Amino acid sequence: MHVGFDKVFLVPYSANMIKKYKPSNRDLALQVATTLFLSKGYLATSMDDIVTASKVSKTNIYYYFKSKEDLLSAIMDQLIQTYTEMIHDIAERSSLTVQERFKAILRMLTHQELECLGGCPFITLYTQMPLDAPIIREKVGRFFRDQIGIVEQLVLEGIHKQEFKADLSARSTAQFIVAAIEGGLFLQHASEDSTLLEQSFHTLALLLK
Amino acid sequence: MHVGFDKVFLVPYSANMIKKYKPSNRDLALQVATTLFLSKGYLATSMDDIVTASKVSKTNIYYYFKSKEDLLSAIMDQLIQTYTEMIHDIAERSSLTVQERFKAILRMLTHQELECLGGCPFITLYTQMPLDAPIIREKVGRFFRDQIGIVEQLVLEGIHKQEFKADLSARSTAQFIVAAIEGGLFLQHASEDSTLLEQSFHTLALLLK
Repeated sequence: MHVGFDKVFLVPYSANMIKKYKPSNRDLALQVATTLFLSKGYLATSMDDIVTASKVSKTNIYYYFKSKEDLLSAIMDQLIQTYTEMIHDIAERSSLTVQERFKAILRMLTHQELECLGGCPFITLYTQMPLDAPIIREKVGRFFRDQIGIVEQLVLEGIHKQEFKADLSARSTAQFIVAAIEGGLFLQHASEDSTLLEQSFHTLALLLK
Repeated sequence: MHVGFDKVFLVPYSANMIKKYKPSNRDLALQVATTLFLSKGYLATSMDDIVTASKVSKTNIYYYFKSKEDLLSAIMDQLIQTYTEMIHDIAERSSLTVQERFKAILRMLTHQELECLGGCPFITLYTQMPLDAPIIREKVGRFFRDQIGIVEQLVLEGIHKQEFKADLSARSTAQFIVAAIEGGLFLQHASEDSTLLEQSFHTLALLLK
């Protein structure tokens, strides 16, 4: 049975889980590499570490991924797909107000249980990507431009439904919201204040009205 | 002559500069390590790389810093001191409105010329710090709690001077602003949109009024 990455983020990797779901060797290597890259660091993890922790042979891992950078690229694709789907799902719940959907997105983002060095998997991996890996860096850039686009549509909907002020610039408000979420995930982690993101978005809700 | 880290951030490390300022071997090792840790990565830089780039002998470097982590800790102290001073200097310019001071802080932060993997030196170093380096991680946490405190005082001043809405929560507004700045520095880098931070703060200015 295929183990989706949603499972990986909701339930941190454990030997039991692997027994139960019987993922393929490729999935297993990806799962273990994701856990190690996020909790220990991409640059601090070697292919040998992944071999040891996943118990997948080196030959087998190199059959699927020709380098550590190739593995990082595949992890980034999975992360982007999972997060894009989760955010889309919430954004489309038109029975909720726009504010309620923002809250649901925040809750989803702060309840990912996987340990991350920087509070958010994208920040954690991006800041460790070599400058000479432009293709993977560009994937992250495109992901965030897409997220700003989704939030911009939500802001427009909020203005249209008179939830938000009529004179807001939807574009720059969306940039601001995405920046505050990313920065908030990082700050909440660095300042060890688990209520920071929720409190500051309570203030944003008041400002947008 | 002592080379302050403000110099390092305003003028990226170059052979000429070093000739001119004649920094001590300790300062030279610190400067080179800062450049390498931020542009290539802490985890991707070895002590040997620092020896080669700085031309300070290994014995000499180890005389000042007993490990790479010790060097990271000293760099963090310098960064924190430099940024704290720069932010304090701007915060205290009481001839400016609070909004003008926020703008000046943003300008200062976006005009640091040193190449950083993650758009901000604190995010870049924090996300590469091992989880078992709690003392350095805590320094970063304290720095951000201090910055939130400074911004909170500015927000209170803005409310008092009727620049901002009277019903704002100064604390959570400050958390929100610091989060948006940090996230904006990262997003601006990742999305390759150099106007993102300025545009989104233009929106914030309108929201706070």
